[in-house]
Amino acid sequence: MIKTVNVDLGNRSYPIFIGQHLLGEKKHLTPYIKGQQVMVVTNETIAPLYLEQTLASLTDFKTSSVILPDGEHYKTLEVLNKIFDQLLEQRFDRQCTLVALGGGVIGDMTGFAAACYQRGVDFIQIPTTLLAQVDSSVGGKTGVNHPLGKNMIGAFHQPQVVVCDTNTLNTLADRELSAGLAEIIKYGLIRDLSFFEWLEQNMQKLLNRDPEALAFAIERSCQNKAEVVAEDEHEGGVRALLNLGHTFGHAIETGGGYGTWLHGEAVSIGTILAADLSYKLGWISEEAVQRIKAIFIAARLPIDIPKNISTDTLLNLMKVDKKVRSGRVRLVLLKSIGEAILTADYPAELLVQTLQH
Amino acid sequence: MIKTVNVDLGNRSYPIFIGQHLLGEKKHLTPYIKGQQVMVVTNETIAPLYLEQTLASLTDFKTSSVILPDGEHYKTLEVLNKIFDQLLEQRFDRQCTLVALGGGVIGDMTGFAAACYQRGVDFIQIPTTLLAQVDSSVGGKTGVNHPLGKNMIGAFHQPQVVVCDTNTLNTLADRELSAGLAEIIKYGLIRDLSFFEWLEQNMQKLLNRDPEALAFAIERSCQNKAEVVAEDEHEGGVRALLNLGHTFGHAIETGGGYGTWLHGEAVSIGTILAADLSYKLGWISEEAVQRIKAIFIAARLPIDIPKNISTDTLLNLMKVDKKVRSGRVRLVLLKSIGEAILTADYPAELLVQTLQH
Repeated sequence: MIKTVNVDLGNRSYPIFIGQHLLGEKKHLTPYIKGQQVMVVTNETIAPLYLEQTLASLTDFKTSSVILPDGEHYKTLEVLNKIFDQLLEQRFDRQCTLVALGGGVIGDMTGFAAACYQRGVDFIQIPTTLLAQVDSSVGGKTGVNHPLGKNMIGAFHQPQVVVCDTNTLNTLADRELSAGLAEIIKYGLIRDLSFFEWLEQNMQKLLNRDPEALAFAIERSCQNKAEVVAEDEHEGGVRALLNLGHTFGHAIETGGGYGTWLHGEAVSIGTILAADLSYKLGWISEEAVQRIKAIFIAARLPIDIPKNISTDTLLNLMKVDKKVRSGRVRLVLLKSIGEAILTADYPAELLVQTLQH
Repeated sequence: MIKTVNVDLGNRSYPIFIGQHLLGEKKHLTPYIKGQQVMVVTNETIAPLYLEQTLASLTDFKTSSVILPDGEHYKTLEVLNKIFDQLLEQRFDRQCTLVALGGGVIGDMTGFAAACYQRGVDFIQIPTTLLAQVDSSVGGKTGVNHPLGKNMIGAFHQPQVVVCDTNTLNTLADRELSAGLAEIIKYGLIRDLSFFEWLEQNMQKLLNRDPEALAFAIERSCQNKAEVVAEDEHEGGVRALLNLGHTFGHAIETGGGYGTWLHGEAVSIGTILAADLSYKLGWISEEAVQRIKAIFIAARLPIDIPKNISTDTLLNLMKVDKKVRSGRVRLVLLKSIGEAILTADYPAELLVQTLQH
């Protein structure tokens, strides 16, 4: 059974297909490619696993591929330029399509390359990690990192189609699977209490990679994100709520050095910090905080601030976050499990207390 | 008398102000800046001339500036990154505004930096060359070059306002003034016969930098471009006609090495080539070709292909142009003085003959 989530963005709308054995099938790709040239962008880890299968589904086109080094610290302008080199050396024109085959880093870089190449060409996402399937595949955020901040250089650019093959999750490391679960839990926390409750009941199935449980969790996550993005494509308002735990998380990722912490792990710790500050503000109960901690622990995720990152470093790094407005750090906090708000209205000393460890 | 041209692009519409003594006035800038942080991007040539005056009109804001090296061969991703470095070091947030103070290179790079910084911030253009005032200030094309092709990496990003102070043209080198005239003549050729005739009559006034003649020519050029861009913002159709002489011109610029030929000079030669091919196709008369040559000569522009660029090099470079579709080089050619078309429907050997020299 193939599930479909439609991301509704007017003339930039696109479908997400979710299911087993989708990779290698032409029918989910061919109708979404307008030109004759297709460049598959992937990395050294994914290429030996899935590149051949992907190219086999693109035999109606003139294909080529770029294999980038694997890892968040290669998500830079310099590595992005390798995609442009290849596109230009092979004379790819404005009607070409780029295909992102890999995790969030590949998706973000390929999408950004597509946004900028000849001022914008099409792209398709084939996310191969749980995190990419539930997060970066919806919403069109693309970009690269800068030494002074994550995702600081980028564009909004929507894909033509997203293909989530749950089989690709079988080759995913346990740590990567858990990192994806962090974003899934987030959707429950910010806007979907019943999904949160389902996750409390079904975490073990997800860790066991039960295909049906995974497909349901991916579908529900994409639906939640698609609803938010349809309401607020360019993050003027409600979309910011998707960043629960992210302002803290980005500071942890940057402070720890790119590549030390997976994005989902940092978001896990960040979400606990957001819950703690929400509790200190009297918005959620101690019991709710414990329930939140329990679900992240059940997903085998870290919940404590790394010892080697000081409170000052975190505070400093949080100030360059994209959600800062006129110097005030705005944070996504919880009003309850299932309801989040974006606010800069909290005493600075409570934030400092939350960050002490 | 201040002239205003409105570029009509729905919620991305913006005004262009044209006149003398506009630099240093707050009223053309302040209403178009939403946040508190303003970064002026300029180059080593322009900074000593106009930076102080520009900053003086921005005292209501927290300002900073980046001074880039001057020249087309600095229009690269690496130099672009210097703008991002500065923005991040100074903690510029998503509500900030970038101001491009300079010629086309500064405008294109600043616009592209604004398009990508935090996935998009506002920008303002203060073009200080004739070319930038009549060309790059309208239409939102931004970007950088790649060693394999000009403007291959970029975005469409519209400014909030454009301020064209004709006084800044007094410090412009004669060669730069002529380069701007090439684009002005282009508007006459592709869609405005009576403007072409006005230019034939008034070229000497423009070369003498008569402020009224300049303001008229800038206004009429911006109006022409604004009409085309309003019809076709992302160059799906009629906008491509603005590239008369540009596919040839880009090949001359790239073949000669960035910085050898000014963009307008290359466009001048390229337009003569387009006229020659149009004549070889039997579309325009020999007399029309002579009239076109005469106006470019009157504007003190080159009209012959540089001897050091071979016909093969030109043909090869033209194939990576953004207007290539499925391997066919589409060219803007002339049906008459005042009417252009985009076509790939010409015998390849006539193109080769046109490029022989």
